[in-house]
Order: sequence, then structure tokens, then C-alpha cells
Amino acid sequence: MSKWTTSPREALRAGKGFDLAAFDPSSRPGWDHSRAAGEARLAKNGVRLGELQERLFADGRTGGTRSVLLVLQGMDTAGKGGIVRHVIGLVDPQGVQLKSFGVPTETERAQHYLQRIRDGLPTPGHIGVFDRSHYEDVLVVRVNELVPREVWEPRYDEINAFEKEVVDGGTTIVKVALMVSPAEQKARLRERLERPDKYWKYNPGDLDVRTQWPLYQEAYQAVLDRTSTEHAPWYVVPADSKWYARMAIGRLLREALEDLDLGWPPADFDVEAELARLDAQPT
Amino acid sequence: MSKWTTSPREALRAGKGFDLAAFDPSSRPGWDHSRAAGEARLAKNGVRLGELQERLFADGRTGGTRSVLLVLQGMDTAGKGGIVRHVIGLVDPQGVQLKSFGVPTETERAQHYLQRIRDGLPTPGHIGVFDRSHYEDVLVVRVNELVPREVWEPRYDEINAFEKEVVDGGTTIVKVALMVSPAEQKARLRERLERPDKYWKYNPGDLDVRTQWPLYQEAYQAVLDRTSTEHAPWYVVPADSKWYARMAIGRLLREALEDLDLGWPPADFDVEAELARLDAQPT
Repeated sequence: MSKWTTSPREALRAGKGFDLAAFDPSSRPGWDHSRAAGEARLAKNGVRLGELQERLFADGRTGGTRSVLLVLQGMDTAGKGGIVRHVIGLVDPQGVQLKSFGVPTETERAQHYLQRIRDGLPTPGHIGVFDRSHYEDVLVVRVNELVPREVWEPRYDEINAFEKEVVDGGTTIVKVALMVSPAEQKARLRERLERPDKYWKYNPGDLDVRTQWPLYQEAYQAVLDRTSTEHAPWYVVPADSKWYARMAIGRLLREALEDLDLGWPPADFDVEAELARLDAQPT
Repeated sequence: MSKWTTSPREALRAGKGFDLAAFDPSSRPGWDHSRAAGEARLAKNGVRLGELQERLFADGRTGGTRSVLLVLQGMDTAGKGGIVRHVIGLVDPQGVQLKSFGVPTETERAQHYLQRIRDGLPTPGHIGVFDRSHYEDVLVVRVNELVPREVWEPRYDEINAFEKEVVDGGTTIVKVALMVSPAEQKARLRERLERPDKYWKYNPGDLDVRTQWPLYQEAYQAVLDRTSTEHAPWYVVPADSKWYARMAIGRLLREALEDLDLGWPPADFDVEAELARLDAQPT
């Protein structure tokens, strides 16, 4: 079976000096093989992901405190939903806690912007998935000046401090920015307008957002510069090939789970005594 | 591809005079073919389930009010978790809302027993799954006399009225009782005691519950007699063959979704005008 030449964890990490303007959304860092080989690799990885997720779940059920949080960001059509369906869909739904963060409700607007995020953090033993996140508070909010600069400017540091607290509490954070090119986005929007089974995914507002592309690039660059920390680094995933993005994120998730190095929880009862009790019962 | 001889909806429905004592948990009503053929049928059904679930989701996103609720009941080891993993796992996790109802918390005990159930109902566009449910309030509660008879006795009627209200609100309810034989349960408990990767699923209390088997049979019989209504019938699914139970429930779910007869939502925008706007944008 074909293998990664460089692990996505190395190949996709946004380190110091990462330049989004020079990034190619149609590239496939670390993967020199075909799409078919990539799909086979994702399927195989899925089996292992399922085992690791079950260990995490078992750990949570027996007093463990670990969890994993996958944060998904990206422009419209970048494929966040497809990641949930095709990567997260590989593991047992019982072990997944999924949250979508849309425009804040009135109640949410009355709270601190991180409150709804805290409320949505995964509980022990679970893989949490954020479809959009607190990063919207320095992306759409910054681009559209929904609050003044002196309010959003301190948020980068606040977010770093918040995430540190979450990580210290036992949650591994995997932050993924899915990057689609303007041309590919155009093609995907066109598909939504040409296929009646996709109309429901189309929103005329998406075209207005598209005109703000350079402002969003700038806002993403600031996010990557200022919040790709040691405790919660960003991975920038080229998303023009959906299959590449899926396999890369499947691998990032798997590595995060492998790092937890969880065995199966030991019995908290006397195994032999229980077997004897069971044997003593009728059929 | 092999087919059902009788639809599970017909073959498994608990109608008037259903006798649990005469029910065979190792039977496979409506399916005359092999396990391999059954697994192929479930996989194929899964593709269709995925499509139907997406239509339901699209409907919910565009103002629809429909949802589907799968209620799973059964003795320990009957395979409720496996249904979630292998049947619900076939559809997009974004469209699923899963709730597990364990022993009520202190807060829950202070509320009406149906309150936590109401709070957990699926929102429009979703498939809700209850792993245990309000039926525990006439099963474990009745068997162990956790409340006096004059309290649990009226609950059958209360539950029927509650479910009627839920159905009238647009939610299709599919109630499934997974029936495992005492011998098969014994074998499954033994496996949990013999395999260290399964210790975490074992609870010494399970053996105490096993000694109450006849009382639970009686309580299940009362549930089937009194709450298998026109608006929310029960399906009794033999669960000694896990693959049979999974394919049967996959089919019940599919039929419930087919009945909604949902098309794709029409565009709520001017498609041609949007295409023109898109074309006018750079790349």
C-alpha cells in the first residue's frame, strides 16, 4: 500500500513565517501517489481510527480525562462538511460530539464570545468536532468590522490562553484550515447552482463573501501568524482535491489519537470471581 | 442481490396479542438468505439511507419540520451500541442527534420523567437516536419498584399521549426492542470477561439484572401490549444474530425515511440571476 513521503503533521504545519499568499491549494504535500491510492489509504486509516476512538471512549468511561478536538475552518465550499461526513463518519457516532458555530444567536451575543465555545468542548472520551469555531471572532468579525479593532485585536492572545487551558485540561486540539483556490470555489458554487439537489447548499451571500477574498486571506494570515502555537498548532490543508484533504485530516486525527497512547482500561472487578458467578447462572 | 421475503415493518411489528414468551430471538423473520447476503443488503441499503438522510437534512435547513426518532431498547448486550455504530454510522454524522439515557442525575430526578426526553428530541432535519429512553421508566423502574405501582402504572398512557404529541409535531417514531436470548447474553457477557479489550464494557451489576430476567420479560410484555400504538408502533427485533438485527433496523429506518417522501428543496433565489452574478466575478 502506498505511503506518505512526509507525515501531514510535518508537511502541513503552519510554522513561523508561513506565507499564505505563496500557498498552493491544489498541491498535495507529502503524497506522491494517485487518488485511488489515497482513497485506499484513507479507508485503511479509518479502521485504525475506529480502534483508537474506541480506546479513547473506553478511557472516558472508566475515569479518564482525555479528549480530542478537531477545529475546522475554511471559506465556503472548502469542504468542512465533507470532512465530517467522510473522515469523522469513519468512527463510531457514539464517540463523536459535533458542534456547528453559525452566526451567534441573541443569547450568545449577550455572552463572552468564548462562552459558547466552552459550552461545546468535548467531554472526556470523545472526539469533538467544531465546524467553524471561535476563529470566526477574528475572521468574519475582523473582515466586516463587526466590532472595533480594539475589541478583536486582543482576541488572538485571549484565544491562545483559552486553548492552553483546554489543552492543560486533557484535550488535544487539532486545528485545520482548509484552503480552496478562488477558481475551485467558483466551480463548486457553480455546481450548487446547476444541480437542483444542491440548491439548498447555496446562499446568495456566499458571492458577497467572495468579493472579500483578499481581506479574508489577510485575516487567515493573521490567525496563522498569531495562533499557531506549540500547544495548539495550525495545519493548513490544500483543499482543491477533496480526497487529499480527507486523507490528510484522517492522518492528522490518527496521529493525535496515537499520541494519547491509551491501552484498554484494566478490570475494576475480580475477573475470575465474575466468571464463576456467571457460570453459576442458568443458561 | 437477495431480497426480504417480507418487509421487517410487517414481519417484526408487535401487533395485538403479540406474545414475547413465544418469540424466538434466534429467528430471522422475513430473511431467508445467508449472513453474507444480509451484509451486502445492509451496505446497499446504507447508500440509500445516506441519500434519504441528506434530503431530510436539506429539508430541515430550508424550513421543514420533519425528523425521525429511533428508540432503542433491549437487555444488556442486546446490541444497542452496535446498531448505532453499524447502522447509524452509515449516514452523515451531521444529520444525527444521539442521546443515551442512563440512570437519571439528581437534576433529572427532580424533573418530570419525560422532561429529559423532551429536551433530547431531534430538531427538524435530523435523525434522533435514543439509546434507552422513557421506557426505562416502566422497565427498570417497574422491575425494581423504584416508584410505587400507582406512579408507574399511569405512565403507559402518559407515554402514548406524549408520543402522539411528538408525532403530531412532525417526528416519525421508530421503536425497536432488541431481543437477545438468555443463552446468547451469557455468551456475550463471557466474552466481556475473557477479552481484556472488553473489560470496560462489563459491569458486575449486569449479572444481578440477569437474575431478574422473567420480571423484565413481563415488563417488556406490558410495554408491547400497552404502547405499541398506531402512531408509534413497536418492532421486536431478534438480536441473537447481530447482522440480522442491523439489517432489519437499517430497513425499518429506511422505510420511515422513504415515507416522508421528501424531494430536494426548491431554490429560494433566482438561479439564473445568481449564475450571472457568479460569472461576473473574477476566476
